[in-house]
Amino acid sequence: MERTIFDLEHRQFRDSVRAFLAKEAVPNTERWETEGMVDRAFWSLAAAQGFVGFAAPEEYGGSGLRDFRFNAVLNEEVVRSGAVGDGFSLTNDIVLPYYLDIADEEQQRRWVPGIVNGDTAIAVAMSEPGTGSDLRAITTTAVRADGGWRLSGSKTFVTRGIQADLVIVAARIPEPDGGGYGLFVVAHGQPGFERGRKLEKIGRRAQDTAELFFDDVWVPDTDVLGEPGRGLHYLMGNLAQERLSMAVVAVASAEYAVSTAIDYATERKAFGKPIGSFQANRFRLAELHTRVEMARVYIDRCIEAQNSGELTAAEAAGAKFATTELEFEALDACLQIHGGYGYLEEYEVARRWRDARVQRIYGGTNEIMREIVGRSLGL
Amino acid sequence: MERTIFDLEHRQFRDSVRAFLAKEAVPNTERWETEGMVDRAFWSLAAAQGFVGFAAPEEYGGSGLRDFRFNAVLNEEVVRSGAVGDGFSLTNDIVLPYYLDIADEEQQRRWVPGIVNGDTAIAVAMSEPGTGSDLRAITTTAVRADGGWRLSGSKTFVTRGIQADLVIVAARIPEPDGGGYGLFVVAHGQPGFERGRKLEKIGRRAQDTAELFFDDVWVPDTDVLGEPGRGLHYLMGNLAQERLSMAVVAVASAEYAVSTAIDYATERKAFGKPIGSFQANRFRLAELHTRVEMARVYIDRCIEAQNSGELTAAEAAGAKFATTELEFEALDACLQIHGGYGYLEEYEVARRWRDARVQRIYGGTNEIMREIVGRSLGL
Amino acid sequence: MERTIFDLEHRQFRDSVRAFLAKEAVPNTERWETEGMVDRAFWSLAAAQGFVGFAAPEEYGGSGLRDFRFNAVLNEEVVRSGAVGDGFSLTNDIVLPYYLDIADEEQQRRWVPGIVNGDTAIAVAMSEPGTGSDLRAITTTAVRADGGWRLSGSKTFVTRGIQADLVIVAARIPEPDGGGYGLFVVAHGQPGFERGRKLEKIGRRAQDTAELFFDDVWVPDTDVLGEPGRGLHYLMGNLAQERLSMAVVAVASAEYAVSTAIDYATERKAFGKPIGSFQANRFRLAELHTRVEMARVYIDRCIEAQNSGELTAAEAAGAKFATTELEFEALDACLQIHGGYGYLEEYEVARRWRDARVQRIYGGTNEIMREIVGRSLGL
Amino acid sequence: MERTIFDLEHRQFRDSVRAFLAKEAVPNTERWETEGMVDRAFWSLAAAQGFVGFAAPEEYGGSGLRDFRFNAVLNEEVVRSGAVGDGFSLTNDIVLPYYLDIADEEQQRRWVPGIVNGDTAIAVAMSEPGTGSDLRAITTTAVRADGGWRLSGSKTFVTRGIQADLVIVAARIPEPDGGGYGLFVVAHGQPGFERGRKLEKIGRRAQDTAELFFDDVWVPDTDVLGEPGRGLHYLMGNLAQERLSMAVVAVASAEYAVSTAIDYATERKAFGKPIGSFQANRFRLAELHTRVEMARVYIDRCIEAQNSGELTAAEAAGAKFATTELEFEALDACLQIHGGYGYLEEYEVARRWRDARVQRIYGGTNEIMREIVGRSLGL
Repeated sequence: MERTIFDLEHRQFRDSVRAFLAKEAVPNTERWETEGMVDRAFWSLAAAQGFVGFAAPEEYGGSGLRDFRFNAVLNEEVVRSGAVGDGFSLTNDIVLPYYLDIADEEQQRRWVPGIVNGDTAIAVAMSEPGTGSDLRAITTTAVRADGGWRLSGSKTFVTRGIQADLVIVAARIPEPDGGGYGLFVVAHGQPGFERGRKLEKIGRRAQDTAELFFDDVWVPDTDVLGEPGRGLHYLMGNLAQERLSMAVVAVASAEYAVSTAIDYATERKAFGKPIGSFQANRFRLAELHTRVEMARVYIDRCIEAQNSGELTAAEAAGAKFATTELEFEALDACLQIHGGYGYLEEYEVARRWRDARVQRIYGGTNEIMREIVGRSLGL
Repeated sequence: MERTIFDLEHRQFRDSVRAFLAKEAVPNTERWETEGMVDRAFWSLAAAQGFVGFAAPEEYGGSGLRDFRFNAVLNEEVVRSGAVGDGFSLTNDIVLPYYLDIADEEQQRRWVPGIVNGDTAIAVAMSEPGTGSDLRAITTTAVRADGGWRLSGSKTFVTRGIQADLVIVAARIPEPDGGGYGLFVVAHGQPGFERGRKLEKIGRRAQDTAELFFDDVWVPDTDVLGEPGRGLHYLMGNLAQERLSMAVVAVASAEYAVSTAIDYATERKAFGKPIGSFQANRFRLAELHTRVEMARVYIDRCIEAQNSGELTAAEAAGAKFATTELEFEALDACLQIHGGYGYLEEYEVARRWRDARVQRIYGGTNEIMREIVGRSLGL
Repeated sequence: MERTIFDLEHRQFRDSVRAFLAKEAVPNTERWETEGMVDRAFWSLAAAQGFVGFAAPEEYGGSGLRDFRFNAVLNEEVVRSGAVGDGFSLTNDIVLPYYLDIADEEQQRRWVPGIVNGDTAIAVAMSEPGTGSDLRAITTTAVRADGGWRLSGSKTFVTRGIQADLVIVAARIPEPDGGGYGLFVVAHGQPGFERGRKLEKIGRRAQDTAELFFDDVWVPDTDVLGEPGRGLHYLMGNLAQERLSMAVVAVASAEYAVSTAIDYATERKAFGKPIGSFQANRFRLAELHTRVEMARVYIDRCIEAQNSGELTAAEAAGAKFATTELEFEALDACLQIHGGYGYLEEYEVARRWRDARVQRIYGGTNEIMREIVGRSLGL
Repeated sequence: MERTIFDLEHRQFRDSVRAFLAKEAVPNTERWETEGMVDRAFWSLAAAQGFVGFAAPEEYGGSGLRDFRFNAVLNEEVVRSGAVGDGFSLTNDIVLPYYLDIADEEQQRRWVPGIVNGDTAIAVAMSEPGTGSDLRAITTTAVRADGGWRLSGSKTFVTRGIQADLVIVAARIPEPDGGGYGLFVVAHGQPGFERGRKLEKIGRRAQDTAELFFDDVWVPDTDVLGEPGRGLHYLMGNLAQERLSMAVVAVASAEYAVSTAIDYATERKAFGKPIGSFQANRFRLAELHTRVEMARVYIDRCIEAQNSGELTAAEAAGAKFATTELEFEALDACLQIHGGYGYLEEYEVARRWRDARVQRIYGGTNEIMREIVGRSLGL
């Protein structure tokens, strides 16, 4: 079913992104997977094309495009290309909003231009070894000291943790200093800030995910985002967009899997006929195709709702779990369609299957998502 | 997520339908279930309100509203009311189109006014004891005789088969008489046309479903729809709308089930707390709520596509199987939420669960639907 | 895979049961379904054959056969016959053990002979309108009075509630009278004991299930089972056998469904070939056949474990939920194989499908079963 | 539920295997994974302990133990250890039977002692790039030449393809030379026999899987197994044991996953309590535990049936698909229980999850297994 949410400018944007990725990302896929991260240089090129931080105001180098359709197009094309990792969605969909919506003008002037021109890699550090999805269990603490704060603790599962120049760190503020949680921007090189290992993951290997350690790191008041004590509130505020971003990726990934599996099933023969003509395969693909199309239409509607400010956190949570479950189901079925070849790393479906698995876990596990939706229903 | 496809006139139509059903249908639910059919008188009342055949041109008593949104609203409200059976969707969505699109002007003048004013109950007879979903296996035959045709054979699973005044009968035409299949309109009382038993079904008990027998029934040429020989073509032509109609019912039914189960789970207590607060129930309902919302948005999109003539037969087939599978899954889970009470006939969910089961079967089984979608994908 | 748990005597017992049911039960199926209960006379005939209470000692008219394989054979043949309802499993597997294991010698002498010869119909009343699966929420109370107890409260979902001559009633004993819960045997006709409506159920219609009301019913001390206050303990003690009984029924029911569906799929043709030769059907039946065979072997092992006293309550709970989920899945798939005919009451699969649905609910919902297994794992 | 199929000697065998693997395999796990194969030296050690080829007659160095319970114990302990790859099951369960059952006495004398003492690594090459599960599509051909045969073609997915000293190659024999298919033993170093790449797989990385090429390789008549032309018959003959072997692995793997996930869920806390105490996790694990226990009992029964010669090819096919589907479902759920850590390679569950995926594919895809079971049911 034809998509109806895009205008000409989005379609042109898609063409540019696709061409750019084909030229600058796809040829590097294997290398980035092996090296465990995407070249810094790539981000400068992407930024030069306007693909990084386009939501930022023009005065900071952005295009002022706070239209999630552009974010969606970018994510979809990244999925299609099969390269790059999570950098675009992390930067544009997840981290940048803190700088645009919570940072004050001085901070924006200081930080946003570097983000937009690709010089400054950004990340956000929430999870800790002992917390999982429970943000209130954060033990990294920030205490008042010398006209600023001193941070101590450790974080893990930080996407782009190795490359990040600026990391927003969520930390607990003890009662005497006001209580609550705060968001502290810590720069690479700050004394006491150490990066841990790059985590070896099942998939998403072109993405550097890391542990970070903070040993009495001093953060001046000028590097605190918003009011200290309101950090959880800020984190919550951006969740709908973060989860929608993951849902957009999920649907694009599922679509790609189903359509390539259909192609494969049409060409590959067994027992003298295309394997797609065996009814079990035909039914399986018909079912996935239909369910993915339903998800597609729904996510497009969510994108519109996000643009109009109507998408609720619970709706985004529902979209996230439903689409990422479908995504993995699709990838798993499509791998199976490939038979033994699906199990070989040289076949694209193998990597995409490994990559997809994390979607049910990160950004809040799908169990947490169901919990959120359930509570929104009064249960 | 708010629905966006309706205008003021659809909302007003919904209010009227809802009020009408609450007054004229709901109080009769039990009786119709027991008697196995809906009163003829009800249909006259409904017709007087403009709820029957509104797609017909004004000259024949209709409102000329070929806007499937009205059909959808009507179906949704019928589901909500829990009364009536399939009469509205059968008449408006499935059978009337044959009279409006294939019948010639003389036939329309003769038949449509009676349909629209509720005097004439209509049905279509396709399935036969030996055919199931395979229309090409039809054995009812029509042979040329005396400036008309003689029909012989039997049909089954004919919705409204007991009440129908006019039945469109699909019959095979042997080669010497042109080959192919034809659609023949047979009127109640015609010599050789006998109704068989009212079939006792698991659910949908307010709906009379029957076997029909044709023993050398003479049908004049003037009662043949369109060209003899092109019957299968005509049958195919209306399939998208028929399946969409079922999908609309499925989503409305699933929505109703989930929302009443949420209410029940909020009120009913066990082990000292609402049963909805047990995580397994909360997750189950959260999941169903989300998937039903996705289906809702998709079907609304299909309704728009149907209105603009873009909905393909395969898309409608996909919508039919995906939503009716979801519908039954929802009903089954919601029955389970009710515990022992869900198994009692006095609880509404029990009847709705029985009623829902047929949706995966009729209008072409969901296996046939997957076959259609699979073939549309080139598999 | 051949079953290995039965000896010659069990096979002979099976032959007798099968012949008896074919003669005395099967011809009455429709009537019992319509009347909502099985004739009392049938039970006298069954008792005369030794099929009721055979576990009782010979001095009370039984055969002293405390070998659950006989119970299993009986349940399996009842399922196969498709008639009778739950009377055999209720009497032999669920209620009789209270009389054999908890009643004192005087009580046994008084009650057991009548049970074994079929004169005395027995039942147990646990659930209440407000309790569901939470036995501690029982509000029926028993207070000391006149050398006995006075019972007040109401029960529901009492299997054989209409016919029962003796009902074991679980009631809460208030603190001043000792606390805890007690099991009180209430006889039909006792002042203050009233039967409520026969509950109309989705299925199991040959089984009378009822509400019972107790308005200050006096129960002499001699009609209390075991020690007052230890009632919950007694109820728990018999749970493994009760759940195993349901699992035996579930597997037999699933086996029957799959094997009749295979027959149907072999005979019924569509598009010129047997519907079972369509791969989607073939796969579905192959899968169900295999999973039912796995369940069969497992339940046979559980029967052995029950006989040797090793079957734990948690294992029985696991067996109950896993097999009853499989049973319904099998019935539902087999109904679908029958197409439209599966939805007709005249087809056996329709009734069996309706009947099967309760298994996931009664005897403790499958959610409660999962809870029990989970806790047994330390979770 | 306690297992009942083992005697003292099997339990002692298990102890020896477990101790051996803990000492000689587990410490090498990471290295073997990285190198993509298990040291040849390991196999000599294993052989010295009697773990290789124990089914062979004593005159050839074996123990004459044709008792599949030993094979099962070995496979289960290999799974438990998490090291080694498929070498034991490949050698003992899959390839050795060809040498014991089809090879003639001279061949046995020549080949079996080396296999049993660990000097000779063996493999079987069936699949080809274009065949998948369809053995009749084999294009590798063997033509008569010089008192022997000349083989040409290529094979893929050959387990232990890199290390194998002797490879049984299935090849088509053209009509003039007798037709049918033959099994030809090709030794490493034979002119024209080349090993291709070691295939990089999603999992099972300690196992060398390879492509093999045969360019006019001469095989003397003395190296043909059984009668040329009856190769397919021989291949079929060993299928039950091969599939049972995979099912044994599947159940052991699922058991290990569930039990370690239960441990993890008991220790790991979130929101202040063990994550296993959240009902959704508790239910998930309870369900998996129960279904795995059912599978365990069933597979033990299959092992007995295999020993008594009663296990049919179709039963083994059913066991293979049902257990390997369950295995992956269990692994996937257990990975999810681990949250983000489950996605990290350093966590054992990540590797086991990757490893498990192939089970649904190799040894005949689970689709082929369903096909086989379906046909055995007459469908």
